[in-house]
Amino acid sequence: MFEAAELGHKLSKEAFKEQEAGLRLRLLNCQLELGKSTSPVIIIVSGVQGAGKGAVVNRLNEWLDTRGLENWSFWEQSDEENERPKAWRYWRVLPARGTIGIFFGAWYNDVIDDAYLCMDDGRVETQLNRIDDLERMLSQDGAKFVKLWYHLPRKEQKDRLEQSTHDQQSYWNMAKEYTGRKKEYARFMSIAERIVRATDTGVAPWHIIEATDNNYRDIRTGELVCRALEEAIRGETGPAAQDVHDTVALGDTDVDDITVLDTVDLSQRLEKKEYRNRLAEMQGVLTELAWEAYRQQRACILVFEGWDAAGKGGAIRRVTQAVDARLRRTISVAAPTDEELAHHYLWRFWRYVPRAGHMRIFDRSWYGRVLVERVEGFATPLEWQAAYRQINSFEEQLTERGDVLLKFWVHISKEEQLNRFQLREQTPYKQHKITDEDWRNREKWDLYREAVDDMVSRTSTEFAPWYLIPGDNKRFARVEVITTVVRSLRKALGG
Amino acid sequence: MFEAAELGHKLSKEAFKEQEAGLRLRLLNCQLELGKSTSPVIIIVSGVQGAGKGAVVNRLNEWLDTRGLENWSFWEQSDEENERPKAWRYWRVLPARGTIGIFFGAWYNDVIDDAYLCMDDGRVETQLNRIDDLERMLSQDGAKFVKLWYHLPRKEQKDRLEQSTHDQQSYWNMAKEYTGRKKEYARFMSIAERIVRATDTGVAPWHIIEATDNNYRDIRTGELVCRALEEAIRGETGPAAQDVHDTVALGDTDVDDITVLDTVDLSQRLEKKEYRNRLAEMQGVLTELAWEAYRQQRACILVFEGWDAAGKGGAIRRVTQAVDARLRRTISVAAPTDEELAHHYLWRFWRYVPRAGHMRIFDRSWYGRVLVERVEGFATPLEWQAAYRQINSFEEQLTERGDVLLKFWVHISKEEQLNRFQLREQTPYKQHKITDEDWRNREKWDLYREAVDDMVSRTSTEFAPWYLIPGDNKRFARVEVITTVVRSLRKALGG
Repeated sequence: MFEAAELGHKLSKEAFKEQEAGLRLRLLNCQLELGKSTSPVIIIVSGVQGAGKGAVVNRLNEWLDTRGLENWSFWEQSDEENERPKAWRYWRVLPARGTIGIFFGAWYNDVIDDAYLCMDDGRVETQLNRIDDLERMLSQDGAKFVKLWYHLPRKEQKDRLEQSTHDQQSYWNMAKEYTGRKKEYARFMSIAERIVRATDTGVAPWHIIEATDNNYRDIRTGELVCRALEEAIRGETGPAAQDVHDTVALGDTDVDDITVLDTVDLSQRLEKKEYRNRLAEMQGVLTELAWEAYRQQRACILVFEGWDAAGKGGAIRRVTQAVDARLRRTISVAAPTDEELAHHYLWRFWRYVPRAGHMRIFDRSWYGRVLVERVEGFATPLEWQAAYRQINSFEEQLTERGDVLLKFWVHISKEEQLNRFQLREQTPYKQHKITDEDWRNREKWDLYREAVDDMVSRTSTEFAPWYLIPGDNKRFARVEVITTVVRSLRKALGG
Repeated sequence: MFEAAELGHKLSKEAFKEQEAGLRLRLLNCQLELGKSTSPVIIIVSGVQGAGKGAVVNRLNEWLDTRGLENWSFWEQSDEENERPKAWRYWRVLPARGTIGIFFGAWYNDVIDDAYLCMDDGRVETQLNRIDDLERMLSQDGAKFVKLWYHLPRKEQKDRLEQSTHDQQSYWNMAKEYTGRKKEYARFMSIAERIVRATDTGVAPWHIIEATDNNYRDIRTGELVCRALEEAIRGETGPAAQDVHDTVALGDTDVDDITVLDTVDLSQRLEKKEYRNRLAEMQGVLTELAWEAYRQQRACILVFEGWDAAGKGGAIRRVTQAVDARLRRTISVAAPTDEELAHHYLWRFWRYVPRAGHMRIFDRSWYGRVLVERVEGFATPLEWQAAYRQINSFEEQLTERGDVLLKFWVHISKEEQLNRFQLREQTPYKQHKITDEDWRNREKWDLYREAVDDMVSRTSTEFAPWYLIPGDNKRFARVEVITTVVRSLRKALGG
């Protein structure tokens, strides 16, 4: 979830200056308009230690008009607060309609602390429940949430924290909050992922912001706040927002246009001979592992998504060749049947949940909701935004019996796709594989790119990770996929 | 929560016959219309053992067209089901759009079982979370829920279960489900209350049906199903339903027009001398208890609601007289201030949550949301329907530190109110207490009566019970209130 945000986002000083000017003006105008609306705006600033949350808030205070803007941090509880229900300290400072409240951590501090201190699970779940209720209740009342999570790669955080011990000014960073946690980066991340996932709702989604470069961090923050203000002004909160949303621009374009797909090294290739050897080796192992999974009654679900002509089919075939036909089944997901249309969109996938010990391969999947349905407008923004959490919950249920769920995005460059399309048109036995729709989809490449970026960052979970497979070289992609399956199965089966 | 349903609802054979004919016709017509809509309807039949859930479902099958209607019970899990996530067995039988599915127990069986078997709290909370997600997700997709909880008073259940052991036909009732639970009525009720409360949402509310009289039980069921079908046909599901709801008739009038207020014995009175003695005694005890509560740092919140001129003020004064002024504060809730209007409706009450050890008295309260705001249309039906759960959650938070929260509805007859209104008009120093608004409210007596019935049955909880105080005799009411406060404080303080 968070790793997907490690894209090396950067903004030069000049680019920052240039964007800042326009952004400030927009922010101030929005704030003026907001004052006439009935929406309070709640900005929640959270994330890893050392990410510069304080600096971000200072920046927002510099950019916005301080009238109608209040900042709240929640450190030690006062005795007054201690004597009342936990939520009291948040309720007392909720912003009034037309104003903005910036909350450091807000109610997330408590639940992260409790989870970190291994409080019992019932308590943590109850708090997650209440957060969900609270945010839903307030947004139905008109509130607009901007939940910002600032992320740093492990190494970067370490460097910063070591630096800051020599730095008097950062006293608060060190002394307060998460002292001691720096050694437990992985554990903290795992807890944070659970909390963020559970509270990433349609009405109050999280935005994960890479905080390595300060310029990028601040401009990205300003952009997200500005968009939220615009939505609040247009009245796009509350349960009636669905209809309004239909008219909103789809994209959540980032300020520097880098997506998670840009991290994929497409130059990787395998020569024919090495390909043959490694494929044969992996297929041999997989055959055994599939039987072992059957003996241990562990199901295995593989999800394949990717660009048209990326080579999903070829990669799937290399897997299925190695698994006994009695143990596996491939589901090709195309347009839904009448019966499927008569149900909730997840129903058609619940149908195909495999029995214990079996492998099921989805050639396209429930991710259609946040890919094609989003891009083509078949799902409303409120629908596809709500889908991330629905999908995460679905996948959590699929895996909590110890089953394996792996998700592959087979990636190719736009040029490589063009080559393959043209080749298909010229090769008689491949012509059936290329249609007008493929060409139409290709025109929407950038919209899909954004959708994939959001999808990967919001649904890469510990229990169901995404693997981005470089597909320009088909041989490399096939071996990479089957190797990943083998590695994951081995780990799960303790082999 | 459930006790409030023990009203002795009854329907004669003739009344049943008469109502049945009309109901059947309406049901069939609705079902026909539903077939053209995009809403699936999910009827969940749950409740205590012996309440005749099977008989109810048979009746519905008799009344409805069996085409487009399916019944599902969820006893032993098949091995197929065992090998998949728990939710799979429900997803596989979800009704298609335009059809009706009757689910025995549905997903509530699992969570009740787990809570009953003392599975860890995290697991129970997670399931409650998932139920909430599932029902919300399906209703946003157009599904209409009818959740029916059949209740029997303790004695009635005992009689029935003893009867049924001699009755071959009831084999399933006895052998399956909750065998062994009959001895643990109280514990089962407490668990059921928690589950029902946690899942009593605006989009999928529970209806508690008294099942002692079969005729009443069946007609009431048919009525509720019929209304749900009508709502589904009008498209009143999903997030956009809010606007549509505004035009819907408010009341949830019961088939025999008995409400919880009819259980209050208004003939009870106290003579002057006994009143003086008992009041003095109770006030003396309360003075001590209030200081003891301060020493133990337990807060005490008293909520007073009731008809205009019911004598709330007088009852409150008898309490405050006994409590040191430094320890208590009375909040008279009138029209909200500008500042309060600029926040969520609960904000103004969160402000007044007392510190530890203090007593706070609310003369009218957050229940305005489901009383005046409901009756006057200040809150939309979706808003006030959602408020029951919001209020329950608020009160749960108020009490989980061990604080005491008591709620009083001071009840008077309509005639007594008239007497008091007239007396106020005739008595110079009382004239300020009677306004045109009081007379206007009086005209809406029946709407308020329904609202009170719903309020009491849906927000009487273990941690924050309602007390219905007979108010026709002011002396009786005052002593009853203060005695209840004393009894509850004593229990809480272990005195």
